[in-house]
Amino acid sequence: MSPALDVSKPSVNTLARPLVERLLAEAGMLDVQVRPDESGVCIVDAGIAVQGSVAAGLLIGEICMGGLGQAHLSVSGEAGWPTWIEVRSSQPVLACMGSQYAGWSLAASKEETGGKKFFALGSGPARALAGKETLFDDIGYRDTAGTGVLVLEVDRPPPRVIIDKLLRDCRLSAEGLTLILTPTSSLAGTTQVVARVLETALHKAHQLGFPPGNIVGGAGAAPLPVPSPDGVEAMGRTNDAILYGGRVHLNVRGDDAAARELARQMPSRNASDHGRPFADIFKAADYDFYKIDGALFAPAEVWVSNIDSGNTWHAGGLDMALLLGLWRKEA
Amino acid sequence: MSPALDVSKPSVNTLARPLVERLLAEAGMLDVQVRPDESGVCIVDAGIAVQGSVAAGLLIGEICMGGLGQAHLSVSGEAGWPTWIEVRSSQPVLACMGSQYAGWSLAASKEETGGKKFFALGSGPARALAGKETLFDDIGYRDTAGTGVLVLEVDRPPPRVIIDKLLRDCRLSAEGLTLILTPTSSLAGTTQVVARVLETALHKAHQLGFPPGNIVGGAGAAPLPVPSPDGVEAMGRTNDAILYGGRVHLNVRGDDAAARELARQMPSRNASDHGRPFADIFKAADYDFYKIDGALFAPAEVWVSNIDSGNTWHAGGLDMALLLGLWRKEA
Amino acid sequence: MSPALDVSKPSVNTLARPLVERLLAEAGMLDVQVRPDESGVCIVDAGIAVQGSVAAGLLIGEICMGGLGQAHLSVSGEAGWPTWIEVRSSQPVLACMGSQYAGWSLAASKEETGGKKFFALGSGPARALAGKETLFDDIGYRDTAGTGVLVLEVDRPPPRVIIDKLLRDCRLSAEGLTLILTPTSSLAGTTQVVARVLETALHKAHQLGFPPGNIVGGAGAAPLPVPSPDGVEAMGRTNDAILYGGRVHLNVRGDDAAARELARQMPSRNASDHGRPFADIFKAADYDFYKIDGALFAPAEVWVSNIDSGNTWHAGGLDMALLLGLWRKEA
Repeated sequence: MSPALDVSKPSVNTLARPLVERLLAEAGMLDVQVRPDESGVCIVDAGIAVQGSVAAGLLIGEICMGGLGQAHLSVSGEAGWPTWIEVRSSQPVLACMGSQYAGWSLAASKEETGGKKFFALGSGPARALAGKETLFDDIGYRDTAGTGVLVLEVDRPPPRVIIDKLLRDCRLSAEGLTLILTPTSSLAGTTQVVARVLETALHKAHQLGFPPGNIVGGAGAAPLPVPSPDGVEAMGRTNDAILYGGRVHLNVRGDDAAARELARQMPSRNASDHGRPFADIFKAADYDFYKIDGALFAPAEVWVSNIDSGNTWHAGGLDMALLLGLWRKEA
Repeated sequence: MSPALDVSKPSVNTLARPLVERLLAEAGMLDVQVRPDESGVCIVDAGIAVQGSVAAGLLIGEICMGGLGQAHLSVSGEAGWPTWIEVRSSQPVLACMGSQYAGWSLAASKEETGGKKFFALGSGPARALAGKETLFDDIGYRDTAGTGVLVLEVDRPPPRVIIDKLLRDCRLSAEGLTLILTPTSSLAGTTQVVARVLETALHKAHQLGFPPGNIVGGAGAAPLPVPSPDGVEAMGRTNDAILYGGRVHLNVRGDDAAARELARQMPSRNASDHGRPFADIFKAADYDFYKIDGALFAPAEVWVSNIDSGNTWHAGGLDMALLLGLWRKEA
Repeated sequence: MSPALDVSKPSVNTLARPLVERLLAEAGMLDVQVRPDESGVCIVDAGIAVQGSVAAGLLIGEICMGGLGQAHLSVSGEAGWPTWIEVRSSQPVLACMGSQYAGWSLAASKEETGGKKFFALGSGPARALAGKETLFDDIGYRDTAGTGVLVLEVDRPPPRVIIDKLLRDCRLSAEGLTLILTPTSSLAGTTQVVARVLETALHKAHQLGFPPGNIVGGAGAAPLPVPSPDGVEAMGRTNDAILYGGRVHLNVRGDDAAARELARQMPSRNASDHGRPFADIFKAADYDFYKIDGALFAPAEVWVSNIDSGNTWHAGGLDMALLLGLWRKEA
């Protein structure tokens, strides 16, 4: 039962455009590198040849949310860790599912690339131009903007064949497409992944069968780890930040039983592997995401408020002892 | 002893105008509805026919403060509640008393409306154009801008007779007036009321006879509850948020005895009814605000710093156990 | 071994210019006074003849960081104090050492001024135009912008001879120079000094011999005290805020031993005088900064993350009991 496509909805690519322009204009300050590829596609390197920055990561986080969410750094020192990312959106379904979710599978074989095979999950506004995922039917959303921006968590630029596919699927001219490259091991990469704490909650809600249209607002926070130069470790940390340090508050509509059940079932502690560092879980699963209990990919602590009843349910909780044990050494 | 009118003071309507324009431009994102009425007055529905949003409520909170204050959401999870509103102003007297305070009584009888009788308390910048309240003499402020914006905590648009009165009293053409409608039971309505935590302190200070001109800065925070569909309950929660969860820090001038006395007398716990949910107090008072001890309408915790002496006094404290007992259910 | 001058680096004066223009445009709101001197230099009084404000202090803090850092107020009530300043920069070496550090010694004798002798330490972007300090060789940075802004922590305007020297050393026309005057005893003065919490860490790292080029990001927070009308007391409080309430998180590169040693040696508790109010230490040192152990000028709590290894070290800790004992009275 898909919602009807509502053409009056905001365009995530149009709303993200001023943020993309700020990323380009402030490239020096943010320590990112901007260059057109040979066809005119704008490539932003946010952590491969250059170092990038946390500030770039926050801005890329807001670009990922299609201009429909805010991400900022807090230095409150909450719960024993100095720096946290806070995220909020009053349009969480469009911001997180319609734009931020890393759901567009982009693969090219050795034959296609003429070199190494390529795989990446595209995230951000341009997904809604292509609409290749069934998720877009579930939320009844497509974008038709004339410019698009896609974020790729990669450590090398995508091959020609992938760029051509993106232009075709998004129906964009080369000049209309911006690609932002953020390796997980980089400052910007780690930052923009931890800025997905709210998106993780939206995704889990979707998997639990909660109707996206009934989620009307959301906010979240998670501690920001330092990136690790080791790819698996870096990825493990961003997951740990959310699974053990992520707190999300959703405003929903509908009946109370569904809201309460959402709160009860959402926290990461519902998964059997909960309690171990993600990098360990990933190695034990032979580096295969699909062998890991999907219930794990969720915030640690969840608040669900039902604006139709005025009730709020709380479930789960942070496990900062685990995170501090992994991340902090006394000098 | 009224201060002389100082025409060099900032215009709250002029400073609020860019924020109003943002509210109109981002109506889709913020889920508010904008339409001119038959005379050309701009009506913004922030929660009657549409759902509205927390983001709209924060922006309306800043509009209410006449562009002289900032309101933002924090997801720090402080004191056991996930989301808080933080407010600050370096011109708290103009922002809160000259603009944000809901002090303009607007009533129309059945005969005048040709239907149901109407009552609302107008808040926000346009109050300073009309200057109908003695408060404006107390603070020596009037605004003479050519545009005005007023916020009404109502669940239906005001009748023609009220709109005509507003235009007349504010000396505005229809095109110059914007009315923002925020039912208490809506997301934006609850948000913009909790954003009054600093204003509540200014109002209480005024009632205690502290000279407004001696208040030179202020900041405050309060937990943001979910709105209740029940009007009394929704109103109760916004009051509880401030009375039991509000913390305010004022910078003042003058002598230390007055500053200390202000701190001592301001917190809500000075009222006999303190310690019970506001909705219960309101019902026990037969739904009559004027039967409630006015001392109750104040933040829970107060800090007063005297910049003439460098001394800071602290009084009161949050009662989060009461709020969490009311607002949070374990799933 | 000085790094080569890299002309591609951002211009702190150019980046600060829009913030300076905001300070001028919002002078009324921020309660600062703007006037050209007789030669056309723009003088901003942020707390001498006028009262100034915390909001002005935050903006001046961002101007001091050359537009390469953000400063904001938090009302989280963390650790028993209501208001905190949070600062972050993804270009901390340029923002703090190249711009914010109060390192430009400006002195004029009675003969030169024709009145009282003058002494001030200039801070902010214009330092990088003059480049009078060896620090600029250490970080390999100079600015060549056509406008400049300098902040002076003084309670009277600088004499003609100093202004002429500034114009000469910065190679600016009078119209190109803005001077911002912030007495320590003022709201803006106290605020902009506490906003130096991250800069204090950068300065200490430099003194410890840590290579500036290896510091790639930073954030910090400190409690904001009320200014004292007594100059020594006011200065003591801003120091206490950082020495006993400051928390800094640095991202660095290089080897782990150096990062760990930086964390271990940075906190203020490494100084013998640690544990006493700064005003007392200063008086005991006969009001002579140079008799005080330089190791004291540092944040209380330090986090150092090495992005080359992924390790994070923690050292030191806040001493809020000392601060609250000094700053807070129960009413």
